[in-house]
Amino acid sequence: MTSASTSVETLFREFDSIAKITYQDFFQFLSFPSISAEASYRPHVLACASWLEEYLKESGFEVEIWQGKGYPVIYASWSGKGLQNPTVLIYNHYDVQPVDPIELWNSPPFEPTVRNGEVFARGAQDNKGQCFYVLTALRYLLKRDGTLPVNVKLCIEGEEEVGSASLPSLLKQKREKLKADHLLVVDVGIKDPQTPCVTLGLRGIVSLTLEVVGSKTDLHSGTHGGVAYNANHAMVEILAKLRDISGKIAIPGFYEDVVEITSTERRKLNFDFDLETYRSCFGGEPAGGEKAFSPIESAWLRPTVEINGISGGYTGEGLKTVIPARAQAKISCRLVPDQQPEKIGKLVSDFLKNVCPLGVQVNVQVHHGGGQPVRTAADSYVVQAAANAYTEIFQKPCQFILEGASIPIVPELVAASEAEGVLLGYGLPNDQIHAPNEHFGLDRFRKGFVTIIKILENLAWALNAG
Amino acid sequence: MTSASTSVETLFREFDSIAKITYQDFFQFLSFPSISAEASYRPHVLACASWLEEYLKESGFEVEIWQGKGYPVIYASWSGKGLQNPTVLIYNHYDVQPVDPIELWNSPPFEPTVRNGEVFARGAQDNKGQCFYVLTALRYLLKRDGTLPVNVKLCIEGEEEVGSASLPSLLKQKREKLKADHLLVVDVGIKDPQTPCVTLGLRGIVSLTLEVVGSKTDLHSGTHGGVAYNANHAMVEILAKLRDISGKIAIPGFYEDVVEITSTERRKLNFDFDLETYRSCFGGEPAGGEKAFSPIESAWLRPTVEINGISGGYTGEGLKTVIPARAQAKISCRLVPDQQPEKIGKLVSDFLKNVCPLGVQVNVQVHHGGGQPVRTAADSYVVQAAANAYTEIFQKPCQFILEGASIPIVPELVAASEAEGVLLGYGLPNDQIHAPNEHFGLDRFRKGFVTIIKILENLAWALNAG
Repeated sequence: MTSASTSVETLFREFDSIAKITYQDFFQFLSFPSISAEASYRPHVLACASWLEEYLKESGFEVEIWQGKGYPVIYASWSGKGLQNPTVLIYNHYDVQPVDPIELWNSPPFEPTVRNGEVFARGAQDNKGQCFYVLTALRYLLKRDGTLPVNVKLCIEGEEEVGSASLPSLLKQKREKLKADHLLVVDVGIKDPQTPCVTLGLRGIVSLTLEVVGSKTDLHSGTHGGVAYNANHAMVEILAKLRDISGKIAIPGFYEDVVEITSTERRKLNFDFDLETYRSCFGGEPAGGEKAFSPIESAWLRPTVEINGISGGYTGEGLKTVIPARAQAKISCRLVPDQQPEKIGKLVSDFLKNVCPLGVQVNVQVHHGGGQPVRTAADSYVVQAAANAYTEIFQKPCQFILEGASIPIVPELVAASEAEGVLLGYGLPNDQIHAPNEHFGLDRFRKGFVTIIKILENLAWALNAG
Repeated sequence: MTSASTSVETLFREFDSIAKITYQDFFQFLSFPSISAEASYRPHVLACASWLEEYLKESGFEVEIWQGKGYPVIYASWSGKGLQNPTVLIYNHYDVQPVDPIELWNSPPFEPTVRNGEVFARGAQDNKGQCFYVLTALRYLLKRDGTLPVNVKLCIEGEEEVGSASLPSLLKQKREKLKADHLLVVDVGIKDPQTPCVTLGLRGIVSLTLEVVGSKTDLHSGTHGGVAYNANHAMVEILAKLRDISGKIAIPGFYEDVVEITSTERRKLNFDFDLETYRSCFGGEPAGGEKAFSPIESAWLRPTVEINGISGGYTGEGLKTVIPARAQAKISCRLVPDQQPEKIGKLVSDFLKNVCPLGVQVNVQVHHGGGQPVRTAADSYVVQAAANAYTEIFQKPCQFILEGASIPIVPELVAASEAEGVLLGYGLPNDQIHAPNEHFGLDRFRKGFVTIIKILENLAWALNAG
């Protein structure tokens, strides 16, 4: 038996009837400072996990705590539909980013505050907000109907913001529990508030640290200027070689495994880019990519190399006439199918070593735990179910987009669950995630609630129809 | 009447007879934390100046405190030889560098500690040590003879480590008082402990700050990678253009005013360079200059551009996948005759703006208060007097050297005093000035005492003979 489909209008009304209690719970969830990156927050991260465990049990789920080396993974399942019906695995995370620079927050990051219909708090969007409309939808359906449209499994981790270190091995151990037909990764967004979008892919990532070593110690730039090889100079000379004047990455072999998108795939995607909106939002020119590609092509279809951080010598107030002994850079590459993090990491590392000028030395460290790129087919059941939900809610055709960012755990979730996946959510580009004054619209939370219910209904219906 | 010349051996013995009381005074001078760069040390800087004032009065000098906008300049004079005899102006400073990183000091920086014949303290060499053997020599002669070989004026400032901001206008106001025949700047050193050296020149300096601005705020390197122009990338692209592959500075017009050294001047200088000593001392290769010049030629005769500091994006632990909105660099150029700080500052600034890639903006600030290069003739009375003193003390011919560093106040002292100048001292390259564990050899302090007396005697004799 499938749950009856409910109209979008009805679902919005039903949400409004539970909004007050829902936001109370949501804000309580937000008030845990579950910062996974800072060890001193450990008790708060664990308290947040316990609260979530209780909430899910109360909602009607069977809950397991999977304890790896780090913070617990919360696994919750409801299998009332039995094996003859589809199973959906939904991924979220309960940990959040650090809050520094704290002085730039207009309200305390763990005291959720609503201004102009947006709730301001660390995690308001990423990912507690997106997680909690999922949980609200499931709890509501179980209460209203005593059942869900399909079987549901939840995997909510506590280390996403620190690279999901524990999850891959847990995913391998728990493959049987994770088996599903469909996978929803509810951690992305829409292009703008008016446009329904479903995300068909992510870029991968690999990161490196470069250290350039000149002399044993910092030297006086008068006495030693013109003699010692300044590590800062060597570093800029090395890093300037990463890209040519057309913006193309100059590392031999870097593009070798890039698979061109087919014209069929290309037709499904919307590459529109509003230059004026970009300029007013971000204050710069979209000039960072290869000149041969448009900004959206660059963000979705092309790999990058970015210097995320650079430092060397005296960087305090005033001037110190020093020749620094060492300079450092943090570098990351975004990858597209079929680039592999390990191979690209080695290519970049070799390049940095090869272009190192005589007289200085470089140390390059390729970091473990990169992420593979993800690309999902637009015609799968789960993508169609999601797109139809968005279309119905927005009353206009859902667009398909890609996302330039990476969620390294997604390929591992796909492998463990053997499910077809889709990426969705209600983030907006200016939600200030990872930054001060992170916020999430309560209207989007409400849409998220309806979207999740519609997707589950659509998946139940798809099976019956299919 | 001229004081009788004393043999070097006698002077060393005389020093030894006053060594105990001298070091007591010296260590008291060192114990004032007279850090001019940090406002919280103001009472200590002023206490140090008062102590010095008393010490000079007790020694037999007339002392004036010249109060400009900053810390007092101590002007002391002894004119017992009358107008018919020469006058020597001696420059030193009583302020010191900050002590951070304090944790790297093996003994507290303001508790002078002797280990292996070296006194460890902030200012032990730069410049309290060099100042105090001058003062000890003068005090001793006045006590022993009731007179000095020549008239002596002392100018001891308290802002050298912060750019001598107040001194230039005071030098202009007090020109009459500063008039002298000879100028000793006792703030440099010798090449190694065995080699007598007198310094015939300094490089000038001009410094700049570069800021590269991409977007309004830092952006996510996934979502925006390949779209936003990363300020770190723009910065390395700009800075890598400063020098070509031969190490030559690629700024148009940069070398225009460089005057080649004459073959006569060249013959007087010793360009020896010991590669093995350099490698073992500094741990790197002397590969930082123009390939067309040797290391010593590069340090003495050629101008430089050095990136003293660079920063942009995330530089903390781990990785943050950010596209920084801004990146900064601190740049300084060392100048040789006849390059002018203002002109070179403008050339560098124009160059940085011209090579700025489309899509980002640069802000360049040329800092005021650069310093002109200094070159003094090897055949002046004062240079000969100094060279003869060193030759006699070391029992081997004094070498003439140049110094790659800058003392921006020297050209202003020459202009105000109308004197011929010489640069001398007993610093060694590894005294750790401006760094933790600054130290100065007590044997060098002792040699300094004898050197000053011999120079004054030589100048008295030179006049009589001349």
